[in-house]
Amino acid sequence: MSVLVEFAMFPTDKGESVSSYVSRVIKVVDESGVNYKLTPMGTVFETETVDEALSVLKNSYEVLAPDCNRVYATVKFDIRKNRSNRMSQKIASIETKLGREVKK
Amino acid sequence: MSVLVEFAMFPTDKGESVSSYVSRVIKVVDESGVNYKLTPMGTVFETETVDEALSVLKNSYEVLAPDCNRVYATVKFDIRKNRSNRMSQKIASIETKLGREVKK
Amino acid sequence: MSVLVEFAMFPTDKGESVSSYVSRVIKVVDESGVNYKLTPMGTVFETETVDEALSVLKNSYEVLAPDCNRVYATVKFDIRKNRSNRMSQKIASIETKLGREVKK
Amino acid sequence: MSVLVEFAMFPTDKGESVSSYVSRVIKVVDESGVNYKLTPMGTVFETETVDEALSVLKNSYEVLAPDCNRVYATVKFDIRKNRSNRMSQKIASIETKLGREVKK
Repeated sequence: MSVLVEFAMFPTDKGESVSSYVSRVIKVVDESGVNYKLTPMGTVFETETVDEALSVLKNSYEVLAPDCNRVYATVKFDIRKNRSNRMSQKIASIETKLGREVKK
Repeated sequence: MSVLVEFAMFPTDKGESVSSYVSRVIKVVDESGVNYKLTPMGTVFETETVDEALSVLKNSYEVLAPDCNRVYATVKFDIRKNRSNRMSQKIASIETKLGREVKK
Repeated sequence: MSVLVEFAMFPTDKGESVSSYVSRVIKVVDESGVNYKLTPMGTVFETETVDEALSVLKNSYEVLAPDCNRVYATVKFDIRKNRSNRMSQKIASIETKLGREVKK
Repeated sequence: MSVLVEFAMFPTDKGESVSSYVSRVIKVVDESGVNYKLTPMGTVFETETVDEALSVLKNSYEVLAPDCNRVYATVKFDIRKNRSNRMSQKIASIETKLGREVKK
């Protein structure tokens, strides 16, 4: 199984600039060992089970909880059986269809 | 703590009409005992912990997993400390600010 | 055609409480004449064209722009041909499938 | 002004594999001239105005409309005044905070 997740999580009680809080979340993802990719709007990662994916989200909230009163998060899941390695496969499939490379 | 969640979860390998699958998910939420509200675009519910919220999501996927090859989900979290009962409070606060009732 | 939209739009440079800003957005939706419903996590509305839907979003941003440096928005679209009135129809369809009423 | 958008748009009436439809949307983004990046879960792009951003979304729907009965889309906006070039800047800012490179 392949569980692809795209998420953004940030405090909304800290004013306009939140990159120091977001960097804590990225650290959690990076150290969790999952295959991931940071984008300008969030983080995409892939796990083999839904439990693992939810656990990354849970741990991300935990590093914000101590000093953040209000946290907002958006999460998208694309869960597909009998697949793996979709972090690169989905983009490759688009490029094959288009017959050319895209920006990634 | 108040964990407000808005989510939609549905299979994408079942064609255009998916209400029979979505109704399984609503059944999970309804029977979980959490305070919830069905909207035309998803379900909003409130829990007291992040764990409880993630557990509702996990159970929702479980009822689709047996016969769905691909499941898509979008989830938003608004997590706020020292609050409760925001299912009605947030809307009431908007109505106070506007000085009139809104459609809800 | 039925264009169902669920969206939330709020400034992230105004601290923890943003209901006075959110109420401006709700006012825009309310006065636009579209069929809508406020939820604890956003607003759901229905239009007949994509243009109308995008125009509501554009007008929502316009009322925040003057005094908000940073605005975040999440939007979901469910666009379906040969349908109308899905604001009530989608929920009714779930209730039929479940054989009972749900909270809405 | 910098309008960062992350979006995914796909038909839900075409079964499990939709990459041929998604590739039409990427083609629209690619040919629109905006700065963009394809991710395994969607596309991130940046424009200077909200109008331009909505126009990319509108054009994306247009290439699916002819043969898709039902289209689903999720969109996130992060709109910030007095900024530009956030496609690379946001990630660079996280790396500075973490003191190391991340996967991107």
